[in-house]
Amino acid sequence: MNNLAQIPFGDRLADAVRAKKSAVCVGLDPRWGSLPDSIRSGIHVDDRSAVAGATECYCRHAIDAVAEFAAVVKPQAAFFEQLGPSGMVVLSSVIQYARKAGLLVLLDGKRGDIGTTAEAYADAYLGESSAWQCDALTVNPYLGDDTLKPFVDLCHTRAAGIFVLVKTSNPGSGFLQDKVVEGRAVYEHMAAVVEQLAQQSVGSSGYGSIGAVVGATYPEQLAKLRSQMPSTWILIPGFGAQGGTASDVAHGFDTNGLGAIVNSSRGIIFANQTPRYANLTWQDAIAAAARDMAGELRAQ
Amino acid sequence: MNNLAQIPFGDRLADAVRAKKSAVCVGLDPRWGSLPDSIRSGIHVDDRSAVAGATECYCRHAIDAVAEFAAVVKPQAAFFEQLGPSGMVVLSSVIQYARKAGLLVLLDGKRGDIGTTAEAYADAYLGESSAWQCDALTVNPYLGDDTLKPFVDLCHTRAAGIFVLVKTSNPGSGFLQDKVVEGRAVYEHMAAVVEQLAQQSVGSSGYGSIGAVVGATYPEQLAKLRSQMPSTWILIPGFGAQGGTASDVAHGFDTNGLGAIVNSSRGIIFANQTPRYANLTWQDAIAAAARDMAGELRAQ
Repeated sequence: MNNLAQIPFGDRLADAVRAKKSAVCVGLDPRWGSLPDSIRSGIHVDDRSAVAGATECYCRHAIDAVAEFAAVVKPQAAFFEQLGPSGMVVLSSVIQYARKAGLLVLLDGKRGDIGTTAEAYADAYLGESSAWQCDALTVNPYLGDDTLKPFVDLCHTRAAGIFVLVKTSNPGSGFLQDKVVEGRAVYEHMAAVVEQLAQQSVGSSGYGSIGAVVGATYPEQLAKLRSQMPSTWILIPGFGAQGGTASDVAHGFDTNGLGAIVNSSRGIIFANQTPRYANLTWQDAIAAAARDMAGELRAQ
Repeated sequence: MNNLAQIPFGDRLADAVRAKKSAVCVGLDPRWGSLPDSIRSGIHVDDRSAVAGATECYCRHAIDAVAEFAAVVKPQAAFFEQLGPSGMVVLSSVIQYARKAGLLVLLDGKRGDIGTTAEAYADAYLGESSAWQCDALTVNPYLGDDTLKPFVDLCHTRAAGIFVLVKTSNPGSGFLQDKVVEGRAVYEHMAAVVEQLAQQSVGSSGYGSIGAVVGATYPEQLAKLRSQMPSTWILIPGFGAQGGTASDVAHGFDTNGLGAIVNSSRGIIFANQTPRYANLTWQDAIAAAARDMAGELRAQ
């Protein structure tokens, strides 16, 4: 049985950000080709079991390195799914390890489906008998607002959280999300839905348990959405490697420095591949990059 | 290494429909509570390993029962993910089993992400070294047309297939998909993107390897989209349990009876729970329901 705390997710996230003095979310994207040589040494890429084992070892070290400096870790499901069933065993283990390390775990799966299938996804990741035991999950709203309900229900009954895709950080996100419908962009319609759901789950922090994903690469929209969604936690991807800066993401925070978490994946977990941290061991580079990013966000 | 045939997916699908004289796609949604008593007997729902083993046994029997009467099976990822890592081992095994039984395997994962993460999803399910070895995958386009590229690339280089969500079968699909943008509904914009991609991959069948999902529950839109997407395979969910009829789905086919596959999940795999097939064993009920559905589609 899952043992999510019964404090609403929105409040747990606020507590974590305050306790760690950090709005950093560390994306765990264990791309095999980017892992340190010492992790990959002697392992052939076709040996799935060995690759999975080494990936698990790497993720545990990364979690140890960031636990003090990050509020949340965000395992990216795709990179675990890429390793096949062995990768899913690793994903489960990594989630448990991160929770035991005192981190909130947001699984980045961008799941979404209809009816009983949406219920199955919600139950899988957030339900009482969840095999994965995530604190929160990213959700794709393309199939309609009705498809969010099973996830939202578990935010209320299970103190789980979700982050609904609103405005994503990729160059082509405007293809659909920026299209204007009835005088407003699609992403603004989505934001209105999310804010309404967030308001229905607001806890003592002033924020609800239904959040939104808004990319750092669109700072103007981020600023607009911050004011349009006063009760909504915003997960901001696109910091660092994708081009978003600390001043860009500053638009996502409220005047108390709350209301947003900022994700960095490559910029932290592969920090020793950048000049700034190249003189450190890969573990020390990860810790330093997470610590420095938390400081940069506080300074804004 | 994956050993997808090098015949384009669109042509392989046409060959399968012709050879089986069936446009039936059987949805494998092994919802534990709906499985036959004889499969669940003596197994506690919390015993994940036993639940996974029984689910695998059930899926293999279902595949045996439909292999003669269906062109495609569509495992629904959510129900395997719900069983945790053990469920993912079962999913892998079920995919292999179905392919050996001569069925095309379309994984219903509705995956979608950006950049290198989209590449990881595409590689995971359709790539040369795919651990899962699906023939095709359902894909969610909310993040933008640029996010389809890694999947489309593998349709060309690996003879894989994708089905992009265009108009889904749920009651709330109109919330976003029916919104009018620049004079056309969002689903029509998506259809135009899909048709263009399909045209770039047209094989001897006249159809490409990039398909569309259009729900049986919206027959008017289905008819319109059939003529708007002449090179595009349409996967039609929503037949049977969701209310779609044989005359509804007839709008999805071309004049040669090609161009669409029609999915039924509960209506086939849990057929012995309906009055029509209640006097048969559950295996025989599955076979009879698939055979009868193929006949009904041919009659239209």
